[in-house]
Amino acid sequence: MSDGLEALAETSTEPLRVGVLGARGRMGIEVCKAVDAADDLELVAMIDQGDWLFNASDAGAEVVVDFTTPDVVMDNLHWCVDQGISVVVGTSGFTEQRLERVRTWLSHKPGVGVVIAPNFGIGAVLMMQFAARAARYFESAEVIEQHHPKKLDAPSGTATHTARLIAQARAEAGLAGMPDATKDEVPGARGADIDGVRVHAVRATGLVAHQEVLFGTTGETLTIRHDSYDRASFMPGVLLAVRSVTRRPGLTIGLDALLD
Amino acid sequence: MSDGLEALAETSTEPLRVGVLGARGRMGIEVCKAVDAADDLELVAMIDQGDWLFNASDAGAEVVVDFTTPDVVMDNLHWCVDQGISVVVGTSGFTEQRLERVRTWLSHKPGVGVVIAPNFGIGAVLMMQFAARAARYFESAEVIEQHHPKKLDAPSGTATHTARLIAQARAEAGLAGMPDATKDEVPGARGADIDGVRVHAVRATGLVAHQEVLFGTTGETLTIRHDSYDRASFMPGVLLAVRSVTRRPGLTIGLDALLD
Amino acid sequence: MSDGLEALAETSTEPLRVGVLGARGRMGIEVCKAVDAADDLELVAMIDQGDWLFNASDAGAEVVVDFTTPDVVMDNLHWCVDQGISVVVGTSGFTEQRLERVRTWLSHKPGVGVVIAPNFGIGAVLMMQFAARAARYFESAEVIEQHHPKKLDAPSGTATHTARLIAQARAEAGLAGMPDATKDEVPGARGADIDGVRVHAVRATGLVAHQEVLFGTTGETLTIRHDSYDRASFMPGVLLAVRSVTRRPGLTIGLDALLD
Amino acid sequence: MSDGLEALAETSTEPLRVGVLGARGRMGIEVCKAVDAADDLELVAMIDQGDWLFNASDAGAEVVVDFTTPDVVMDNLHWCVDQGISVVVGTSGFTEQRLERVRTWLSHKPGVGVVIAPNFGIGAVLMMQFAARAARYFESAEVIEQHHPKKLDAPSGTATHTARLIAQARAEAGLAGMPDATKDEVPGARGADIDGVRVHAVRATGLVAHQEVLFGTTGETLTIRHDSYDRASFMPGVLLAVRSVTRRPGLTIGLDALLD
Repeated sequence: MSDGLEALAETSTEPLRVGVLGARGRMGIEVCKAVDAADDLELVAMIDQGDWLFNASDAGAEVVVDFTTPDVVMDNLHWCVDQGISVVVGTSGFTEQRLERVRTWLSHKPGVGVVIAPNFGIGAVLMMQFAARAARYFESAEVIEQHHPKKLDAPSGTATHTARLIAQARAEAGLAGMPDATKDEVPGARGADIDGVRVHAVRATGLVAHQEVLFGTTGETLTIRHDSYDRASFMPGVLLAVRSVTRRPGLTIGLDALLD
Repeated sequence: MSDGLEALAETSTEPLRVGVLGARGRMGIEVCKAVDAADDLELVAMIDQGDWLFNASDAGAEVVVDFTTPDVVMDNLHWCVDQGISVVVGTSGFTEQRLERVRTWLSHKPGVGVVIAPNFGIGAVLMMQFAARAARYFESAEVIEQHHPKKLDAPSGTATHTARLIAQARAEAGLAGMPDATKDEVPGARGADIDGVRVHAVRATGLVAHQEVLFGTTGETLTIRHDSYDRASFMPGVLLAVRSVTRRPGLTIGLDALLD
Repeated sequence: MSDGLEALAETSTEPLRVGVLGARGRMGIEVCKAVDAADDLELVAMIDQGDWLFNASDAGAEVVVDFTTPDVVMDNLHWCVDQGISVVVGTSGFTEQRLERVRTWLSHKPGVGVVIAPNFGIGAVLMMQFAARAARYFESAEVIEQHHPKKLDAPSGTATHTARLIAQARAEAGLAGMPDATKDEVPGARGADIDGVRVHAVRATGLVAHQEVLFGTTGETLTIRHDSYDRASFMPGVLLAVRSVTRRPGLTIGLDALLD
Repeated sequence: MSDGLEALAETSTEPLRVGVLGARGRMGIEVCKAVDAADDLELVAMIDQGDWLFNASDAGAEVVVDFTTPDVVMDNLHWCVDQGISVVVGTSGFTEQRLERVRTWLSHKPGVGVVIAPNFGIGAVLMMQFAARAARYFESAEVIEQHHPKKLDAPSGTATHTARLIAQARAEAGLAGMPDATKDEVPGARGADIDGVRVHAVRATGLVAHQEVLFGTTGETLTIRHDSYDRASFMPGVLLAVRSVTRRPGLTIGLDALLD
């Protein structure tokens, strides 16, 4: 299937050479498929536990994508930066201390770029950006997230984060509390209170991962909704990072920075 | 504006003669407008506080619509039934005792019909019927209602009623509890528990009165949504009752019975 | 995962013995998984091309599910009915002539039931039932279906069928044409006209199979929405048929009849 | 009711003095109500046909809101600018030639601001901004607008404008055409083609003015929806302009510029 985002790539004659670390993992498999399917990228190395990292440099990888584990990702990153290979990282566990070490490594390699993102879903990232931007213009804002019933936390991390962004934007704009005349409430009906923003968590078999942010002011509402159907939804974001990282020396945190 | 429901009327040459009690009230004004605009109905009497009820019989009203107050509605009803005039009642405050008295009056007047309905919104009534019917086929069901922020109760009466209908249908079908792995909940996130059905109440400026009932089972969801934008939304239901009441001798409670 | 619909089964001590024909096909694999996961059903035979049908009777199958092909399904059905085994059929290609032959076979086997359904999605079937039922009470009705962009036809078969059901219900209720003042239309903006009902087909990467039926009358709208996320969505309907078929001697066409 | 946007006002002791031209018109009445209800604004003059413009200056108006007609708006504007009064204009009919004349007048009055906006709905303006911004990251984009059936044009002007913004953003990002395998189409099913973006127009009694912009890429969709329920929905935008105009000397076109 043609990928509409390929067009974002620079019009170069040579495809970009990409290696994947954690290539046999859940996400790694998807990344290999997505890179392989993109005309402007060439999958040159698929590396997992027990394989040599040198396979990546031997294969001439210009960018490496790392979906491994917190205990190996720092070694992988150090090696790649040393070799002058740019890296896109989806592995979790990055503390401020770890980020500082990455910055130090990169300071010695001015041409190398590293993108570390906790969430490669472009739709989710845009939803949060738009929510933060709209928040200051509406009297009311609530978040309704909907997930499969096997989810352990309620509300979801994304919903909590969205609510905090909205609360912060409202505070900066000097907005007062939202109007709410509720006097007679069955406990829980009005949802969870996250920094003054009400968040509702719906759970139902059949659902995957969905979120709606509702803004209201006199006579109108604005709703931003994100529906995620499967793991493959992260791939456009990963490919966007792969295509951008060689043009962004130094450390970039979050997909937000690439969406401009 | 043409009213698609007019077509439900029998093809008679003479329009049905309709009087309105409480004609200067909020709802009464709307009823007068709606009756006046319908080709198969004729508005023959507009009566309010200080006017004689006899105006209705003098004008030859065959049906009277009553949107008055609990303290006068019983006298109005008694008088109409005595006169052989059928009545459509939207006034609230009907206890089982009151209903019993109406039945007694009607037992002496076999040709007269009375329709008493707490809610003339056809959409809301259908939503509840459909929800009750779908409930037995889905593992999960939740209710999300959305209203303007001046509303005092949460959840709304309609949402609570819908949840109870769902719970009852599930119990009759022998369904077990809904799957929900939530372990880590910010208080309120999962909504109010109404007979085992989760109900979420959203409040935002700009909203009017909206409700969504979400059903989920393996790989699919079914959603029934009702949006009410203004008071006029009750008129098609009132007109449906007006057109049906002369063909339904005795007491009919709720719009449900007319929707078959 | 527990299946809420299991509860519909009669409280018997012995699980129902089920065989699957076409067990290695796309749908057959899902059926085997679903039967296997249900506490009140036992998967006793998985049969595909090259296997003996007798495996089903030898294993004591009480119900057989057939997801094979139009060229073998009639032989399968004949054999099962002969053996006194009830059948649930998801295979396509049933002409009126074929159905007549099945009826003839069943007339000699009064205890055997056969359910043939073109669509086992409970949500889709309920959506159509509700749409047909709501249609007579609303001035306006439109259908918006949304699918992945690899779909060849627009609108979808389900959308076309829904529109026809709405048109038929409106005709029976004597409803006039829908109000529509459009004078200045960019070609196609108002959708396809299916028996007087406007149908809109949206195509976008990321979508699976979704449909919304919108009804409107004065001041309110009622929306029925179905979202199908994957093939597994047919399983609750298949299991419902499996559990019902032994109690329904003779031929039953469509899931509708089982949803009452 | 408190207006959340008031908080955007500078913390001044004195309320801003506002006059309204076209005060007895449909929109003017709403503006008067909204200004009157805002704590930080004072309604000092309500002027309509037959009244003297001097009433505004005599009353000490610092800002004038003009919702009049194309044939008088230029005279009003010229007079206000001359008097050193800033103006917010919702009247239509501004050609490039007219705008140029306004710029000339303003060049002689460096402290005066004029805001001219074709649409004061903050939600609609944000929807279009977000749509333009999201467009480059998604393979697919379609617009579905929903309006009352008395509307003459299909699709709406806002939908057409949104589609053009999306098409332009896609072109700038070098995106190819959207995937669409449709081979068998009932005419109109796929909507109107506006610069390569499909636009669907739904019409139903009960609806007011609604629009959904759907974006899709692998495994996910992002939807931006705007619902406008009544004319009052323009008031937060008008008040935002009133509060901003004295701090924005010269000519500002469109609400967009104020939303930053």
